[in-house]
This record gives sequence, C-alpha cells and structure tokens, in this order.
Amino acid sequence: MQIQALLPQWLRHYRRDWLSGDLTAGLIVTVMLIPQSLAYAMLAGLPPEVGLYASILPLLAYALLGSSMTLAVGPVAVASLMTASSLTPLVAPGSPEYLSMAMMLALLSGVMLMVAGFLRLGFLAWFLSHPVISGFISGSAVLIAIGQLKYLLGIKFTSSGVLSTIDGLIRRLPETNIVTAGIGIAALVFLFFARTQLARLLKKAGVPASAAELVTKLAPMAAVILSTAVVASLDLNENAQVSIVGQVPAGLPTLSLSFPGWEALNALWVPALLISLVGFVESVSVAQSLAMKRAQRIQPDRELLGIGAANIASALSGGFPVTGGFARSVVNFSAGANTPAAGVISAVMMSAVLIGLTSWFYYLPHAVLSATIIVAVLGLIDIHTLKEAWQYDKADAIALLLTFSGVIVFGVEEGIVIGVALSLAVLVWRSSHPHMAVVGRVPGTEHFRNIERHQVETLPELVALRIDESIYFANAQLLEEKIESLLQQQPGTRHVLLILSAVNQLDTTGLGMLTELEKSLSARRITLHFSEIKGPVLDRLRGTSLGAQMKDRIYLSTHQAFKACSAS
Amino acid sequence: MQIQALLPQWLRHYRRDWLSGDLTAGLIVTVMLIPQSLAYAMLAGLPPEVGLYASILPLLAYALLGSSMTLAVGPVAVASLMTASSLTPLVAPGSPEYLSMAMMLALLSGVMLMVAGFLRLGFLAWFLSHPVISGFISGSAVLIAIGQLKYLLGIKFTSSGVLSTIDGLIRRLPETNIVTAGIGIAALVFLFFARTQLARLLKKAGVPASAAELVTKLAPMAAVILSTAVVASLDLNENAQVSIVGQVPAGLPTLSLSFPGWEALNALWVPALLISLVGFVESVSVAQSLAMKRAQRIQPDRELLGIGAANIASALSGGFPVTGGFARSVVNFSAGANTPAAGVISAVMMSAVLIGLTSWFYYLPHAVLSATIIVAVLGLIDIHTLKEAWQYDKADAIALLLTFSGVIVFGVEEGIVIGVALSLAVLVWRSSHPHMAVVGRVPGTEHFRNIERHQVETLPELVALRIDESIYFANAQLLEEKIESLLQQQPGTRHVLLILSAVNQLDTTGLGMLTELEKSLSARRITLHFSEIKGPVLDRLRGTSLGAQMKDRIYLSTHQAFKACSAS
Repeated sequence: MQIQALLPQWLRHYRRDWLSGDLTAGLIVTVMLIPQSLAYAMLAGLPPEVGLYASILPLLAYALLGSSMTLAVGPVAVASLMTASSLTPLVAPGSPEYLSMAMMLALLSGVMLMVAGFLRLGFLAWFLSHPVISGFISGSAVLIAIGQLKYLLGIKFTSSGVLSTIDGLIRRLPETNIVTAGIGIAALVFLFFARTQLARLLKKAGVPASAAELVTKLAPMAAVILSTAVVASLDLNENAQVSIVGQVPAGLPTLSLSFPGWEALNALWVPALLISLVGFVESVSVAQSLAMKRAQRIQPDRELLGIGAANIASALSGGFPVTGGFARSVVNFSAGANTPAAGVISAVMMSAVLIGLTSWFYYLPHAVLSATIIVAVLGLIDIHTLKEAWQYDKADAIALLLTFSGVIVFGVEEGIVIGVALSLAVLVWRSSHPHMAVVGRVPGTEHFRNIERHQVETLPELVALRIDESIYFANAQLLEEKIESLLQQQPGTRHVLLILSAVNQLDTTGLGMLTELEKSLSARRITLHFSEIKGPVLDRLRGTSLGAQMKDRIYLSTHQAFKACSAS
Repeated sequence: MQIQALLPQWLRHYRRDWLSGDLTAGLIVTVMLIPQSLAYAMLAGLPPEVGLYASILPLLAYALLGSSMTLAVGPVAVASLMTASSLTPLVAPGSPEYLSMAMMLALLSGVMLMVAGFLRLGFLAWFLSHPVISGFISGSAVLIAIGQLKYLLGIKFTSSGVLSTIDGLIRRLPETNIVTAGIGIAALVFLFFARTQLARLLKKAGVPASAAELVTKLAPMAAVILSTAVVASLDLNENAQVSIVGQVPAGLPTLSLSFPGWEALNALWVPALLISLVGFVESVSVAQSLAMKRAQRIQPDRELLGIGAANIASALSGGFPVTGGFARSVVNFSAGANTPAAGVISAVMMSAVLIGLTSWFYYLPHAVLSATIIVAVLGLIDIHTLKEAWQYDKADAIALLLTFSGVIVFGVEEGIVIGVALSLAVLVWRSSHPHMAVVGRVPGTEHFRNIERHQVETLPELVALRIDESIYFANAQLLEEKIESLLQQQPGTRHVLLILSAVNQLDTTGLGMLTELEKSLSARRITLHFSEIKGPVLDRLRGTSLGAQMKDRIYLSTHQAFKACSAS
C-alpha cells in the first residue's frame, strides 16, 4: 500500500480551483471561531485557552477521517453546557482536576464514537426523533441563555438549576455592575442587530448580497475588538471591576494525557455517552442537510470515526468535547468551502493566533463573550418544528414540549434521557393502537374495502379483518381482543379471515397469540384464514407449528380467501 | 340505583349448577394455598401468618372487581421474591418495620394498579414481549430455587446475590443439618415424584384420570402433614435443631395501616411499580389464556382494578403484594371453577384455618416449605418458549436469554428493567432496518415485484422502491441513504417512485425527511412520486407543504404511477 492510499479521497484528488473557496471559508470560520471558542470554554467552566486548543487538532482529525465536505468541527454550545453540567457536581470548576476531567470526558466520548463507528452503530443515533432533538436543543439554548445573564450583568453568585439561577438574578439585581452590564447589553444589542437587520440594510444600501452576508459574520469579532479596545483604554477592569479574560498562555498545546483514576472513569462514562449521542446527532444532522443541498453523500459510520477522532485529538491536546457545530457549518458551506481543507486552514490560523495573539485577549470582557453565546444559542431555538409538528402530529409536538421542559426543569442529561424515552414511548403507543378495518368486497370487483367507508358485500358467516400494522408484543393482545369482540357481535361466524398485507413483522409474541387464537377458534368450530402475507413473514411462518396447521388456509389474494370461505 | 347493581355480574346471575364446580375448586385451591401461602411469606422474609392474611381479603376483593372467572389470586413466588429483594436493603428482615414496609409496598402497588385501571392503561403491560416475560420468570425461578437451598439443607448464613449464595452454600456444606436435609430432600423427591409421575402411575393402576390428577394436587399438603407429624413425634426441633415454623398467632387479621413516612415512600415507589408491572403481566397472561379455553373474555382494565383492589385489601389486612398465580389458577380452572365464588370459598376456608388450625403448623419444618417452593418454581422454568423463539426469531431468543441472565446476575428488579429495555431495543432494531425492494412490472400485468426475485420490466429513468415498514425517526435516515445510493447506481434517473402500501405510519421525522428529499431531488431535476398511500397516512399528508407540493404526483396504484413516469 502506498502512503497516498492513507490520505482521504478529497486530498488525493484535490483540484486547484477548489482552493479559493476553501481559503475564504477557512478564514471566515476562523473569525467566527475565535470568539466562540473562548466563549464556549467559559460556558464549559474552563480557561479560555482550552477553547482555542479544542479548535486546532480536532479540525485536522476530522479532515482526515470525516465524510462531510463542509462540516465545521470545534467547541459547540450544547456539548459545552453538558460538559459543565456533568463535571460541576464532581469537581470544583477552575481546579486542575476539572480540566483533566474535561479532557477525560472528550477522550471517553471519542473512544465511544470510534468504537461505534467500527461496529457500524451509526443507526443508534436515530433513536431520537426529530421533534425530540428540536425540543432538546431549544431547551438547552434557553438554559444556556439564562445561565449567561449573570456574566452579562456582572453579578457574581453560584447556583444550580434554572430556578435557583433566576431567583439569584432577581434577588441580586441591585448588585449589577453598571459598566459591565452596559458593555454586555450594548454587545448583545449590536450582535442581535447584526444578525437580524444588518444584511438587509446593507443590501438596501446597495452593497452586494454576498459582501453584506459576510459583514454580518464579522460582527462577533468586531464586538470583541471594540470592547477590548474600550476596556483597555479606560482600564475598566481596574476602574470599574469589569471581569476580563486576563492572561491567556501563548503557544501551542502540548500533547499529554493524565489518567484521573477509575473512580472518575466510573462517574464519567454516562455523561460521555450522552455527550457522544447528542454531539453525533447534532453533527450528522447538519452534515446531512448540507450534503443534500449539493447532492453529496455523507456516511454515518465514517462520521462516527471523524467526530470520534476529533474528540480524541481534543483530549490529547488539552481540549474538551467537540462536535460539528450548526451555525459555523452553515457559514462554512455558504462561504464556499469545497473540502475539509477549509477546516485545515482554520486550524492553521488558530495555531497562529495561539502562538502570537493571545495577549490581545487580555482586556476582552467576559460580558461580551456572554453576549456572543446568548445570540448564538437564541438562533438554535426552533419554533418552526413545534408549529409543524403541532399541525401534523400532536403526539410528536407533545414529545417536543416535554423534552424542552425536561431539559429546563431537570437539566440537560436528564432531558436527553427523557427525550429518548419519549421517542420510544410515542413509537410504541402508535403501533400498540393499530388501525384495523373490517372489510367487504366492492360489488363486481376483486377489491376489498373498509365496511365503514364503502358500500361493500359481506358474508354473514365471515369476519374479514385487515390489520394495518406489524403484529408484535405491544399490540398482539389488542388484536386478539378485537377479534373476540367482533365474534361476539356476529354470533353466526364460521370463518375469520386476517388480511396481513400491511404486517411487515410478526414477532414471537405475535406468533404465540395467533397460535393460541387458532386453537381457541377451532375449539369453537371457527376456521382461521390468512391472506396477502408478505414474503419475509411467510418464509418464517412456514417453519412453525402454526404454519403447518394453516398450510391450506393461506391465500395469496383476499379474493381467493373470500371465495374459499363462501364455498365451504 | 339498587344495591344489586353494585354486585358483580357473576353474582347477580349466579346459577345453582355452578356451585358444585366452584365448591370443589375452592376446596382444592385451599389445600394448595395453605402450604404455598406459608412458604411464600417465608420467601418474602415475613412471618408465616402474613401469608395466610394475604389469602383472605384479597380473594374477596378480586371476586368483586376482577373480570376473570378462574383466576386464583394470592401470594405468588415472583412477587414474594421481589418483595424480599426490594425490602432487604432498606430494613432488617423480621423487624416490625419490615412488615409495615411490605404492607406499604402492597398498598402502593394496589393504588398504582387501580389508578392505571381508571386511566385505562392496561395496554402498558404489553411493553414486555412474551420471550422477555418468559426469560424473566425462568430467571426468577432459578434465583428462588437457589435461595431456598440453604433452608432445605438447614445451613444458616446471610448472602446477597446469587454468586455469594452459591459460594456460601459450597463453603458451609459441612455445616449441613443432616436431619433437616433428610426431611427437606425427602419432601423434595416426594413432591417432584408427585408432580411428574404420580398421576401417570395412578391412571395406569386404573384410578380415573380426574381423581388421579386431584391426588397429585394434594401432595404438598400430604408433605406438610407427614413432616409435621414426624417432627412433632420425635421432637426433632429440640433433638436435632430442625428449624420449624413455631407459633402462628390464631385469629383473623385486624384492619389497620401505619404510614412508614415519606422517606420510605420515596424508596418504595419504584419497587412497587415494578411489582405492579410484573404482577399484572403474569396475572393477565394466565387469565387470558384460561379465558380463551372457554371462549370467555377478560377485560385488561378491569383486571387492573381487580388486582389493584386485591393488593389494597392485602395491605389493609396485614398482608403483602399478591397477584393471580399461574399454577393455582390452572388448578382452579381444571378443578371446575365456574365463577370467582371459588375464590370466595377459598377465602372462607382460609379464615377457618386462621381461627382454628394455626397451632397445627407449630412443628412444620421450614425445609418442607422450601421443598414446596422449589418444586413450584421449577415448574415455572420455561424451555419451550426459548426453543420456539430460537427457531423462529433469534433476536427474541437472545432477548429471552439476556433477560434470564440479567435476573440471575443483577437481580429481579434490574432484570425486569433490562427486559423492558430489550423488548424496545428489539422493536426499534427491527423497524430501523426495514425491508425495501426495488420493483419492476411483471410483463403484461399491472403487478409490480422485487427485481431481485422476479423477471420484470424496468424503465432506465425510473427508480421504483417499495418500503415494507412505517417511515419514522429510526429508519428515515436509512431510507434516504438507500435512495441516494440507488441514484448513484442509476445516474440517468429522472423519476423516483416510492410505493407506500406498507407504510402504516409517517411521523414528523419521516415527513421532514421526505420534504427534504423532495427539495433535494427537484434541485437535481428528478421528480418524486408516491403510490398506494394508505388512507390514514394520506389524510394527514394533505395538510402539509409536502402534500401540497406532491398533489399531482400521488397515484392510487403503482401501475398508474408507472404509466405517468414512462409518458413524461
């Protein structure tokens, strides 16, 4: 094998005309990434340089192994919140143990993702329905925004849970640091304006659309530069106790890993699993929807490897859990990224920042980072899915709202567990109450339709029931009850015909129920018939005692079954 | 409303010719119930009279509210084991608090069941698949049998977990009380012989079949009487330290209830929930299968009320969790019980025992009760379902084995949680990997079949895919990937036709995927078509943006869709 074969496909076949798009996208993403990586490190309870570390090697690792051409990997809001909420109960924020636990969390999560990738378990991500993910992300966004308000206003207190945070904010509102709050709120208003109005106004003023869009992406960086300049020139950290980022160590991270002990490992594996699940689902959804816009494809199992490697790289270089971010990926895509080379370029530029520019962040006020976080997460709140689900399917909408509330009331980890449980509960609830229709023949045809919707012919000695669902443990009982109640309504019945055209699966419980039913019916001199069994279901049924019993009473079409029942 | 209307239907319309069957069954069940109720109280870690108390009022409560004509309610092995395993970590067995916690467990469980009954949540019981229930019951049976060995052999030690029990048994085997072990093993051999051989031998010797069956049911009572006589006459409790039941207080239980405090309530609600679930599932399965043999019907929601009321009655009269038992119900049924009057008769006879005969149990050796338990639970071990599932459906068989092992390795409560999780995992696993078939037209017909199984006509610009599963969150992604990969294999495609005849549900996630797919295809100048959508799915789809978009591309039959695609 040549060394070339180890390189990813995009690199082996790199075309020169891709470079300008990748360069532009890499640059713009870097400009977004600098304030966001500092902010998300703060959100995770970590020193600012950790955010920068998590924005270098992970990008390279994903570029080597991932399958998306446009996903932008790095620190993201939800994973940072989950890091903070899983570590805070275990170890004091700010301590060296806290950092080593965060690295461990990234390592565990990375190993889990890569193992899942090798085992081809990408499908596990689909245990979460789209409405539940939407409710989870929106709930996390609200939680993050509320948690940042105290930094925005310069109020100092510790709290656990959203209610105690709100309570603390209200009671300590008089302690607001007016200067900090002024800077924070100004930044918030500016960023919000830039996000929602600036592009429109610039376009109206004659600026070309692409340039106008680009300018709005630079707004967070502008807020950083402006506020840093103001704080530095007026010495507001000394004169008005404005909380600032302070010393950020210069230089690239060193590769290292300390093992925090088995006890820590035991405490961290569940949070790591949840972060992996959420991070992967979030990342692969973005990657997928961007790929579809260009008729490209991503491979979920390779995404597991890519995101997993990115987390391991983050852990080894002093970082914390990372994944593909929604906003930065969209920017990367629209700025013209053609390949993961854009990510490589971002990583190189982030390295340059770490080597030469960390001193520039000294006077950067925390309040501006909080404003960046708040504006970023407000963009994650998704009302659209709720509206759509409410119109289309109330059960999904309720699952969304319960997950949303679960995250806010109980916390992110509990929220995601609630979400998985709700996804499954909705699924079982639906298929445990299947649609079933008693059918009759449309006169003069071979078609059979619901007797409640159509004028059809029926036979007094036949109950013909179409089951519009797979037969399995959660509905086998109900189906049996339905048949018994039909028999009570129609006492002269001599034949029961089950039309199985929509039965995609028949599990052992369902098979057991049908076997019992056949016995019980034949004891009452009623004959059971099946029609329109699907190939895979019939293949399996053949080997069973029920299959042997029913051999001559399985019909390809309902019409044949109907003729057989009326003849006998 | 007259007082009569409050009585259950069977009582209002009681027919004199039912009485002899009910009397016989009531008597035989009582003879089984006496040793079993003493034994299961011992298994639950409670004094013997508690088992007798739990065999009076609960039977009356069920007779008033339950819907089965033949279910025999009372203490059962699995619920007794679950009682012991949930209380032992909380409070010392034998203490008054232990008894009051056991009563509380019955009360909580009864209230939960009745609330579930009023809310019509009977369907929740079907969250457990039949193989998982089978694995759970078999695992519990093994656990119980191993746990009884030390009483059978007269070895004294405490242990937690099956491994420590086996370890203790082996290491302390030299401490075996030879006399106790002699009595215990003799009883075990006798009961086992009675269960498996006696009826056959008696019939061979010319005894009528029904009398032969009856005699085998009396074996446990015979073992009790014989062993009591031997121990009493030789004073083996004094002379050989054989552990005996001792003083059982005479007289009926008094109605009372003490509240053990909120902390206890908090510790008990999860075990109560699990006991309710297991007890209800076990009970309703027996009731259902017996009802079917006589073409009767049970109502799951009324069963919830009946079993719930029985547990509340047990709690109020000094008892512990009860439910419908498998073996006693089968005996009740075959002894000719026609109505719950059989249960009322058992209750009356149990009262008589409590008033007048408790002193007879003084010399009853514990080893014989253990033998009774072991023989009873060995009958619950179910190899048949495992064999059947192994042949029919490996996934179900694996779920059975994992639940079985889970119960033995981790314990009953963990086992049932593992079982529910496995039931759901198998369900999601199946429908997340749906069967899909690319189809073509059978020449000269309007039928469409799998291109891999049949010689069919296809069009070079059409991909026609039949999806044999509901489209929902767990498979939406896979379906999308399948379509993309088909498009890569067939680059000239201009039409994609999805045949939805087996799509019983389309959830919000599935709808979102199809909406995205439609957009992405039309951006590539490929047209999406649907055929054979089911009524309920189409009704919902009509109100959505996708429905509006697709309006003219939804066909009743695949044939029409095929014609439309080949024409354009």
